[in-house]
Amino acid sequence: MEKENNGSNGVAATRTVAADKYCATMRLQKHEHVEDEVVVSHNNNNNERTTFLSSNGNGVSTAFPGWYVDVAKAYPGQAQLYETEKILFHGKSKYQELFVFQSSTYGKIAILNGSLQLTERDEFAYQEMLTHLPLCSIPNPKKVLLIGGGDGGILREISRHSSVEQIDICEIDEMVVNVYKKYFPDIAVGYKDPRVNLQIGDGVAFMKSVPKGTYDAIIVDAFQSMGPQAEELSDICFLESVVRALRPGGVLSSPAESLWFKNFVIADTIAHCSKIFKGSVNYAWTTVPAYASGLIGFMLCSSEGPPVDFKHPINPLNPESYGVAKGPPKFYNSEIHTAAFCLPSFAKGLFAPNNQPL
Amino acid sequence: MEKENNGSNGVAATRTVAADKYCATMRLQKHEHVEDEVVVSHNNNNNERTTFLSSNGNGVSTAFPGWYVDVAKAYPGQAQLYETEKILFHGKSKYQELFVFQSSTYGKIAILNGSLQLTERDEFAYQEMLTHLPLCSIPNPKKVLLIGGGDGGILREISRHSSVEQIDICEIDEMVVNVYKKYFPDIAVGYKDPRVNLQIGDGVAFMKSVPKGTYDAIIVDAFQSMGPQAEELSDICFLESVVRALRPGGVLSSPAESLWFKNFVIADTIAHCSKIFKGSVNYAWTTVPAYASGLIGFMLCSSEGPPVDFKHPINPLNPESYGVAKGPPKFYNSEIHTAAFCLPSFAKGLFAPNNQPL
Repeated sequence: MEKENNGSNGVAATRTVAADKYCATMRLQKHEHVEDEVVVSHNNNNNERTTFLSSNGNGVSTAFPGWYVDVAKAYPGQAQLYETEKILFHGKSKYQELFVFQSSTYGKIAILNGSLQLTERDEFAYQEMLTHLPLCSIPNPKKVLLIGGGDGGILREISRHSSVEQIDICEIDEMVVNVYKKYFPDIAVGYKDPRVNLQIGDGVAFMKSVPKGTYDAIIVDAFQSMGPQAEELSDICFLESVVRALRPGGVLSSPAESLWFKNFVIADTIAHCSKIFKGSVNYAWTTVPAYASGLIGFMLCSSEGPPVDFKHPINPLNPESYGVAKGPPKFYNSEIHTAAFCLPSFAKGLFAPNNQPL
Repeated sequence: MEKENNGSNGVAATRTVAADKYCATMRLQKHEHVEDEVVVSHNNNNNERTTFLSSNGNGVSTAFPGWYVDVAKAYPGQAQLYETEKILFHGKSKYQELFVFQSSTYGKIAILNGSLQLTERDEFAYQEMLTHLPLCSIPNPKKVLLIGGGDGGILREISRHSSVEQIDICEIDEMVVNVYKKYFPDIAVGYKDPRVNLQIGDGVAFMKSVPKGTYDAIIVDAFQSMGPQAEELSDICFLESVVRALRPGGVLSSPAESLWFKNFVIADTIAHCSKIFKGSVNYAWTTVPAYASGLIGFMLCSSEGPPVDFKHPINPLNPESYGVAKGPPKFYNSEIHTAAFCLPSFAKGLFAPNNQPL
C-alpha cells in the first residue's frame, strides 16, 4: 500500500485516486493510535461467503464472518457492516489495493486501499452531484478536466452535457479503469463517450502541465476529501495549479468532509480556499448512505472572472439528453442543487466548536 | 416485550412510544425470516465494558465485544456498530425494554425495545425538525399536542415558541419519562416548561377523547415511522382522530421512512394521507447519522381550512427565545426548513420502482 509523499510541494502525488477519498479504512480503529490488523480470507466451507477477521492490538478480537467492516478514520467509535456474498476481485497495482465484492443489498461494493469507494446502490448520488453542481452553474461548458475518477462515473455524468466538446481525464492507476470496466459496466460506461481522452498518469504533475486558462471546469475526484485531514488537496500549490488551468470564472468541484465530522469547520475550509479562488467559494452536501455519517460534502469554487452563483443553477440539465448514460439522472435536479447549499445552524458556525455536541 | 395489538381498530395501542420508531432491532437479521438471537451481558473482566453477543439460527455466530450492533429491519444486509463504554440503565416496564449506554463518541445512546431511539450527538436534528417544520408553518400556534415523545426533546423544542399557551403530552410509559429525566437532562429539560401537561396513558385512546378542533398542531413522536411497515400510524382510524382533533388548517407532523428505503414510495404515502388530510400533504427529510441510511423522513399534513404552505415557513423562530432550552436551535433554520422538502429525482417517483437501483 503506497502511503508516502513523493512531491516536493507536499502533495502526495502517488497516493492518488479516490484511495482516501472517504477517509475510511478496513482497520477497526479502537483508539486513535491502536488500530486493528485485518485479515481477509475466503471461507471455502461457507458457500463462497467471505470472511473478514479483525483483532486489535489490545488482544480484543472481533470477528464478523460474512460481513465487511467499514470504519472511517474520522469517525472513531462507530462502524458500518455490509453483508458480503462473494469477492469478485482482489488485486494490487503499484499504487494501491482494490477489492470488489458482491454485497447482499448494496450491489457490488469497491474498496480502494481499505476505503469504501462506492456501492452500486447509491453511487449515483455522489457522482451526479459532484458533476452537475459545477457544470449546471456555468453557461455552456466546453472543456472539462477530471482528475482521478477512474471508475468512469463522473465521465458518465459529464456526458449528459451536450455543450461539452472535450473531456480530459487523468487517472494514475490503469488497474482501476480496467476493473471498473469489467465489474461495473454501468459506471465505466462513461468511457464510451467519444469526447473522453484518458491519460494514465499523476494528476498533480498533469495539472502543472496544463496551459493557463484551458478548462471551464475541473472536477477532482481523487485524494482525500477537503477538510482538516486533507493535506494534499488543500495544498496551496495544488489549488494554485487548478486556478491557473481554469479560464476566468471557471469552476472547481471536489469532495469535502461531512458537516458532522467534529473537526471540520466549514468556515475555515471556505476561508482556506478563498485565499486561492477569488470568485465564489461554497460548501454543499448531499445524502449518500454508504459514506460515514450518511452524507458527503462538496467544495465548489470559481476563479476570478465572470461571477458564478453556485446556489442558483443557470444551465439546467436537459433530462432527455443522456449522453452515454442509460437514463436520466436518478438524483440530481435543479431544486436539490439549490437545497444542497443550505446548512444546519451548527454547520454555519453559529455555534462555537466547544458548544457543539458533535 | 409487548408485541400484540389490543385495539379493535387495527391500531396497536400498547405497542406505542417510539419503540419501533426507526424500525431497528437488536437482532442481527441475516435473512428476512432468520433473525439472530441476541444476548446482552456485562463483561466484568473488561473494565465495565459491555458485551453484546449474537449468533444466528444458521449456526454462524458473530461476536462484537464492546460494540453495540444496530440493525434496522428495513435495511437487511447492513448494520451500524457503536463502541460502548458502560451500560447506565437496563429496565423493563410493562410496555417495553429500555437500555441506556455510554458510547465512546455519540454520547449516551437510548435503545427502546431493540430500536436505537436517539443519541446525544445528533438527537437535536430530529427533534428540531419534527417540531419546527409544523410550528413554523402556521401563524401563532397556541395549543399543541404531543403523542409519545416521552424523552422530552420535542417538548424542549415546542418550548421555544412563545405563542404557545398549552402543551399537552400523552406518553404511555412513565419509565421512559423517569429514565430520561435522570440520564438525559438536556433532553428531558422540556418538562420544565410550565405550559406542559403530562398525561401517562395510551395515545390512541387519548386521541379519541380529544374534543373536535382542539389543537393547532399535533406531533406524533411514537409508533412506527410512516411508510410501508407502519400499520398503526397509517391506520385510517388513527389519522381520522388526528384530523378531528385539529382546528381547521391545523397541522400534523410525524416521522416517516427514509427515502432510501427500497419499499418506500413517497407518492403512495402522500396519496394515503391525502385521503384523510384535505389540506396539504408533504414529505420532508433531514440528515441524522445514527438512523439507518443516515437520514429520516417526516410527513407534514394539514386539515381542511386555511391553507398551509409547509415549504415556505411564515412563522420563523425567534433565535433568542430559547424557552427552557439552553441555547438557540443547533440545526433548524428557515433555509433548511425549505430545503428539507427538496427530493432527489428517484424519490419524486420519476423512476418506476423497477428502474431504481435501490
